[in-house]
Amino acid sequence: MTLRLTHPDRFVSRHLGPSKAEQATMLRTIGAASMEELVAQTVPDAIRMRAGLRLPDAMTEVELLARANELAEKNQVWRSYIGAGYSDCVTPAVILRNILENPAWYTQYTPYQAEISQGRLEALLNFQTLVCDLTGMPIANASLLDEATAAAEAMQLAHASRANSDANAFVVSESCHPQVMDVVRTRAEAIGAQIVVSASPSAELDKQACFGVLVQYPCTDGEICDYRALADKTHAAKALFIVAADILSLTLLTPPGEFGADVCVGSTQRFGVPLGYGGPHAAFFATTPEHVRKLPGRIIGVSVDAHGKRALRMALQTREQHIRRERATSNICTAQALLAITASMYAVYHGPEGIRAIGEYVATMARMLQVGLQTAGIKVVHNHVFDTVCVEATEAQIAAWHKAAAGKKINLRKLSATRLAVALDERSHLEDVADLYGVFGVSESPVKLSASAKLDIPAFALRASKYLTHEVFSRYHSETEMLRYMKELESRDLSLAHSMIPLGSCTMKLNATAEMIPVTDRRWGALHPFAPVEQAAGYTEVFAELERDLKEVTGFDGVSLQPNSGAQGEYAGLLVIRKYLESKGQKQRRVCLIPQSAHGTNPASAVLAGFDVVVVACDKLGNVDVEDLRAKCSDHADTLAALMITYPSTHGVFEEAIIDICALVHAHGGQVYMDGANMNAQVGLCRPGDMGADVCHLNLHKTFAIPHGGGGPGMGPIGVAKHLVPFLPRGAVLEAPGSDGGIKVGPVSATPWGSASVLLISWAYCRMMGPEGLKSATEHALLGGNYIATRLAPHFEVVYKGTHGRVAHECIIDMRPFKKSAGVEVEDIAKRLMDYGFHAPTMSFPIAGTLMIEPTESESLAEIERFCVAMIGIREEIRAIEEGRLSATDNPLKHAPHTIASLTGEWTHPYSRELAVYPAPWTVTRKFFPYVARINNAHGDRNLICTCPPLESYSA
Amino acid sequence: MTLRLTHPDRFVSRHLGPSKAEQATMLRTIGAASMEELVAQTVPDAIRMRAGLRLPDAMTEVELLARANELAEKNQVWRSYIGAGYSDCVTPAVILRNILENPAWYTQYTPYQAEISQGRLEALLNFQTLVCDLTGMPIANASLLDEATAAAEAMQLAHASRANSDANAFVVSESCHPQVMDVVRTRAEAIGAQIVVSASPSAELDKQACFGVLVQYPCTDGEICDYRALADKTHAAKALFIVAADILSLTLLTPPGEFGADVCVGSTQRFGVPLGYGGPHAAFFATTPEHVRKLPGRIIGVSVDAHGKRALRMALQTREQHIRRERATSNICTAQALLAITASMYAVYHGPEGIRAIGEYVATMARMLQVGLQTAGIKVVHNHVFDTVCVEATEAQIAAWHKAAAGKKINLRKLSATRLAVALDERSHLEDVADLYGVFGVSESPVKLSASAKLDIPAFALRASKYLTHEVFSRYHSETEMLRYMKELESRDLSLAHSMIPLGSCTMKLNATAEMIPVTDRRWGALHPFAPVEQAAGYTEVFAELERDLKEVTGFDGVSLQPNSGAQGEYAGLLVIRKYLESKGQKQRRVCLIPQSAHGTNPASAVLAGFDVVVVACDKLGNVDVEDLRAKCSDHADTLAALMITYPSTHGVFEEAIIDICALVHAHGGQVYMDGANMNAQVGLCRPGDMGADVCHLNLHKTFAIPHGGGGPGMGPIGVAKHLVPFLPRGAVLEAPGSDGGIKVGPVSATPWGSASVLLISWAYCRMMGPEGLKSATEHALLGGNYIATRLAPHFEVVYKGTHGRVAHECIIDMRPFKKSAGVEVEDIAKRLMDYGFHAPTMSFPIAGTLMIEPTESESLAEIERFCVAMIGIREEIRAIEEGRLSATDNPLKHAPHTIASLTGEWTHPYSRELAVYPAPWTVTRKFFPYVARINNAHGDRNLICTCPPLESYSA
Repeated sequence: MTLRLTHPDRFVSRHLGPSKAEQATMLRTIGAASMEELVAQTVPDAIRMRAGLRLPDAMTEVELLARANELAEKNQVWRSYIGAGYSDCVTPAVILRNILENPAWYTQYTPYQAEISQGRLEALLNFQTLVCDLTGMPIANASLLDEATAAAEAMQLAHASRANSDANAFVVSESCHPQVMDVVRTRAEAIGAQIVVSASPSAELDKQACFGVLVQYPCTDGEICDYRALADKTHAAKALFIVAADILSLTLLTPPGEFGADVCVGSTQRFGVPLGYGGPHAAFFATTPEHVRKLPGRIIGVSVDAHGKRALRMALQTREQHIRRERATSNICTAQALLAITASMYAVYHGPEGIRAIGEYVATMARMLQVGLQTAGIKVVHNHVFDTVCVEATEAQIAAWHKAAAGKKINLRKLSATRLAVALDERSHLEDVADLYGVFGVSESPVKLSASAKLDIPAFALRASKYLTHEVFSRYHSETEMLRYMKELESRDLSLAHSMIPLGSCTMKLNATAEMIPVTDRRWGALHPFAPVEQAAGYTEVFAELERDLKEVTGFDGVSLQPNSGAQGEYAGLLVIRKYLESKGQKQRRVCLIPQSAHGTNPASAVLAGFDVVVVACDKLGNVDVEDLRAKCSDHADTLAALMITYPSTHGVFEEAIIDICALVHAHGGQVYMDGANMNAQVGLCRPGDMGADVCHLNLHKTFAIPHGGGGPGMGPIGVAKHLVPFLPRGAVLEAPGSDGGIKVGPVSATPWGSASVLLISWAYCRMMGPEGLKSATEHALLGGNYIATRLAPHFEVVYKGTHGRVAHECIIDMRPFKKSAGVEVEDIAKRLMDYGFHAPTMSFPIAGTLMIEPTESESLAEIERFCVAMIGIREEIRAIEEGRLSATDNPLKHAPHTIASLTGEWTHPYSRELAVYPAPWTVTRKFFPYVARINNAHGDRNLICTCPPLESYSA
Repeated sequence: MTLRLTHPDRFVSRHLGPSKAEQATMLRTIGAASMEELVAQTVPDAIRMRAGLRLPDAMTEVELLARANELAEKNQVWRSYIGAGYSDCVTPAVILRNILENPAWYTQYTPYQAEISQGRLEALLNFQTLVCDLTGMPIANASLLDEATAAAEAMQLAHASRANSDANAFVVSESCHPQVMDVVRTRAEAIGAQIVVSASPSAELDKQACFGVLVQYPCTDGEICDYRALADKTHAAKALFIVAADILSLTLLTPPGEFGADVCVGSTQRFGVPLGYGGPHAAFFATTPEHVRKLPGRIIGVSVDAHGKRALRMALQTREQHIRRERATSNICTAQALLAITASMYAVYHGPEGIRAIGEYVATMARMLQVGLQTAGIKVVHNHVFDTVCVEATEAQIAAWHKAAAGKKINLRKLSATRLAVALDERSHLEDVADLYGVFGVSESPVKLSASAKLDIPAFALRASKYLTHEVFSRYHSETEMLRYMKELESRDLSLAHSMIPLGSCTMKLNATAEMIPVTDRRWGALHPFAPVEQAAGYTEVFAELERDLKEVTGFDGVSLQPNSGAQGEYAGLLVIRKYLESKGQKQRRVCLIPQSAHGTNPASAVLAGFDVVVVACDKLGNVDVEDLRAKCSDHADTLAALMITYPSTHGVFEEAIIDICALVHAHGGQVYMDGANMNAQVGLCRPGDMGADVCHLNLHKTFAIPHGGGGPGMGPIGVAKHLVPFLPRGAVLEAPGSDGGIKVGPVSATPWGSASVLLISWAYCRMMGPEGLKSATEHALLGGNYIATRLAPHFEVVYKGTHGRVAHECIIDMRPFKKSAGVEVEDIAKRLMDYGFHAPTMSFPIAGTLMIEPTESESLAEIERFCVAMIGIREEIRAIEEGRLSATDNPLKHAPHTIASLTGEWTHPYSRELAVYPAPWTVTRKFFPYVARINNAHGDRNLICTCPPLESYSA
């Protein structure tokens, strides 16, 4: 017997769905002699990578976990009292294990198919309810990316809502968190609005026409201000009053909704979500009903299903950027669902009394610090504090205190040479306060001082109103009850733990456990985003390796890991192009060409980046119409800034002309922005940089294995060519940034590396796949796409194919003929797929009435076959309608999906119960039942309810 | 506002189900003014604890996790090449996270209610199949506690099966693992059998009448022996040939079933189960059909349900100890289900090729070590090795090598002064082999030597037969497929994650996440059970604290943490009593009194410990008949050894006479063994030691929060009074133990602290509950038991109550009247409860035709109420039968449980589909559907199939 010198278990064979034998079968089915032949037929020869990726060899899972552990040890988890919108907190263990570490939650897709998403929709409705309750605002969305971008969205909403179009100033109180100011400024500049940072916002309102005022509550240095007069004055000036608030402080303080806020934003991070050196966390955005149509992001609303049963779904979807395109006022197209769910569960578990008690506890810690400092004669700047104590002293004294703190592995916040701040959190104990006494040389003990102290919230700020009054916040306070609640919700949602989710363009591949394990380790999770970089040496290595990986994969020279969603990446990339053009003295270049077929986020991002969108036609094969492009280029030769192009195209084809297209744009002085949504079809086979693209964003939550989390987190780093590297966005910092002469784009996200902790996932993916594995994944993605196209071709029309009759990693199937032949809409087919146990593919994008199917490399042949059999089964059902064997109006497609409930009532349909729920053999043994029947969207939008309805309605 | 100086989140309020308000409601319902009044009415005054438990204050979950982390850091995870049946291994991350760390798996109960346990039953059937395949034996059980006790069970089976009752010798090959020999010896001594340890078992067969021969395969020092001749000779002597085998070696070596083994035992630990400093791991036991009725432990078998669909359940239950009582040949009444499932999933994930490749890989590592040593002229004792290399040299040289190894944090095994062994495993790499070269001063590199080396398995041992040929082992090799398979099985099983499991006497309380988190951390998990104790300083502290806790809770002076199940605890405790009596010169004391009402394990354990069982009557209240006890005591005054008594009684009552009973037994020279199954009703209120008990075992998997894991692991430490402390069992060691003069009981488990890693759970539970919390848990357990008794009393007869009309923590409800009134059996009620979403309470124990209900302290009032409403609903259904409103033969009880499948076929019952599946309001929104209908047990026992049937039958 020969020796076996390496452990046989290789990650790549776990990541890929098909075995070697299955791969051979699939190649045979599609008529390709080899993987190489398939690639040659699919990817234009001119752009093929000749050499392999120059990346380190693949690690096993064991090696990866050992390496992650080694790097984790390089991070130093100091006690960070830095605050500024980020606080350490406790993730209740039962929530950590059963949501954050549970693939049945984190591998869920965005809840577009609401009937099989009722669990997370309920959790997100709870989130909206908690935000509304705590902020005192009537309506909230289901989360945004971070507090800073939420504030920027509020600024944009105010800008878009302004009554007086001359009002161009947006006043930002000096007391806002630095990173919030910074991101708002970046956004404002792009749309030509003026940011006025002021210590006296009220005075600014007298000076100029303003469209909004932004304040922080409590202030970044801890002060609790009375904003009532300012709110009134802002309203009198017909501007919007926007409050960025600390969610925990609102358990004790008067909520912004009670003192005139039009918008309230903030972060729910401290509700149980790890700091993660920057994220991901769920920001919130709450406003009044008059702004609901401009409310960015997703809103969960209550409606009813076909049986009149309460059912949840995303409301008001017509507001979304991909529909509004160049008229969009936001480019947000994701949320931080997993983190919003976590925060909502934290509130459910603690309940109103528990949450308030935590607020009091944190305030007590801060108060004890304040009292101690005052006892020692140290100047505490503000009389009243919630969690942050601001201290003033000489430069020397401040420096000495920072040094003493460092000696105890404590981070304090530097406010200025003569001021510092200390922000306490729910992980702080009296012992920590005692340590802080030690830092400041206070000789008393906090225990002793506590005997005579009291909490001291100013009267104007004392909250009187109740919150979290809905029963959901009072039912699940034992761990057993909480576990069952989360498990019950989990059981209502279809995820990758059940079956393939073949979302075209969304790439629902394996999110491997080994990739996920490090993320919830406190050695990665407990780092404050603004902790000194020396304390994050493990992260620094991960970032460096991941940047190298992404540069190699894209063929670019620089990468920014900052954008914390794909849309953020688009936005950042376009700003980089703009900065570059300005640096060349070509400020006038503001035209952004976007093909007809582009995802709506492209034009939305372009508009937000200050560009004028010009649409380029597509030919009947779905490719960019090169002649039209040529015409548009010459029409706008002087003003052409960029072309945004998705590759392979949104039609699922590798366009042969891509090199010519890039050259054409360059020849006219423009830059090429490549949308990386379809990178899953490129990695290891071709590279954006090699084709001539200048910028590309990478959806790490698609191609690089970050899970979709039921609708977020995502990450959208950008890669850029050499000439653009100097312009990559700088990261936000808390202290005044060193000047870069204005060369770099300003921060687009609140923290320098976006949602840093999930970068570990993509890093782990690259490490375990290795160069051959990454390429193999792409080949298998192409194989899967072509297999489905081949299998379905006899039954459906495949809309677009490439020159050699190949699709890329996904294919579009036409459902429009069935409307005429059988009265069947694409939605009926999508819902009927649920009866077969599947999540529908992407519906009506890029072409209405079609389905775009992407199996990814992680699905086995058995699973892909199961899906094809389901699709063919549905085709036969349609045929039965066409041929009159099934009723045209009362058939299993029209009434899909079928619930268990429908089985017990009187059965009035002309088709059988068996046909309804057991349309395929596997559904008999392995069935996922939708929790509700087809949802009535219009009903919900007409009767908008976006917080938890009374409990009785739950059991209807 | 007043200060809040401590974090408000206290674990005790998470562990307890009822809120303060619910507690008040419950007290009102049962008519008790306060918790104190309830306790006073329930627990006899004479035995009440006056002072509180003297234990450290409660920690929060955060504090506990920090403390566990601190202790974990004190453990040193060296590379352990100790072997001896324990090998480090890789738990595939997807299995770790989705089974070992998943409450939906680990909070399952033993699958007595098979209709709602089909997921784990399939996994356990897979386990039996893999054991049969790899050992080459036709039948296997669903796991035992450890390899050593499995070997002891084999010895007992051989003893019980002997044709010639004069054959009293059991030959144990000297080449067996030391701890295996040690445990077999303990067991043999107790039943009076003679153990002959021999270097030449064959020669022993000539010398005396033997009933069995036990060999190790490969030998403990790594030798691969050809046992064919020995097997034949053993059979010729009418003895059983028993092989203890390494499961991984069987991927390459001829399986014992092919060279004549009658029984094959071993451990599946190295199939993905962490070492955990001793366990828990799943041992296996495989044999031939002729021994099936004596096969210890559980056997999963295939049968059919009421619709003829394939269904699994525990087969041949009449073999079980609790039924055979004093005729039992084993006292085993649990398994290591969770670990057997893990091992089975490891085999499913790797498949036949993968498993074989891992075998080859490990063999390669050992071979490369062997080759290197030989190259350097070092004497390798055996020519052929699988994973263990035995080296011989001078004493000085051996000592020097051990020292060199220690310098590299490597543990080698000490075989003798002149021999050592090195056992490789799947975590070993060529780099590790290179390090070992360094230890031994080999100057070559393994990479270089590997160029010309080959694996060298002797021809007689080369395995030719196939294994893992069933399709289940070839389907799930991608992580995605594996995840879905595990999730699919999970969805078939009801666990605490769904609803209350009110198992009387089994105490299905919360298994808190914070208690579970440390268990799967490699700093606890990767320690070899025989690693030097200095490397386990963290464990040592945990053991010391837990022993202190258990001593305080029981009022005893000594604790042994060794017994790894409750039955093992009974056995160990009885041996301690026996040793004590022998030390007093009272060898003749062999009578063990056991009340009629005792669990069948009690007499089984007594018999195995060499006692003669005498049954004591109970009075009509279910209490021990003191007069009968008195009579039996005097009848056996000279021979009385012990009374075994459960307290509170198995009838759910605190017997008032307990002090008198103990005194009576003592007066007649006997010792009192208290069965701790019901300790959940005692902790903090009264103590076995204070009542006069001398020994008590503690089911840590009941009272102390270790999860049931779907049928194991358990832990059964014993506490003993001062005079018994010297006799507590010594722990097994690999080297010759220092003599204790034979005072101590021999090892009862393979490792000194049993399933050490799960002791962390009980330790964490005690730390977080604190003294008041532990007491409060008991009070709530009593409150729950009495609440149920009160709520159900108008509808059912509560069989036993105490003096003040109170039950303890559980109550027995009589179902016998309904047989006559409505033809309804207790089983019908148990199955009907499934339709209501509940697992049935304990059925027909201690009294046939009754249900014993224990809600535990962790269930909320809402859940308890839901259960009561279900029971009352069933009572009303019975009434409808009694009154003729429902058919006596075709009613929802007789056809329970109802599956989804039953909803789509033709509905022929006189009652409605709605009544069948939605008998209560909550079942409409929150329904758990059994995967199969009522199972036909007799069919399965008549047609015994205990390995995976052909795949077609799965979809039947």
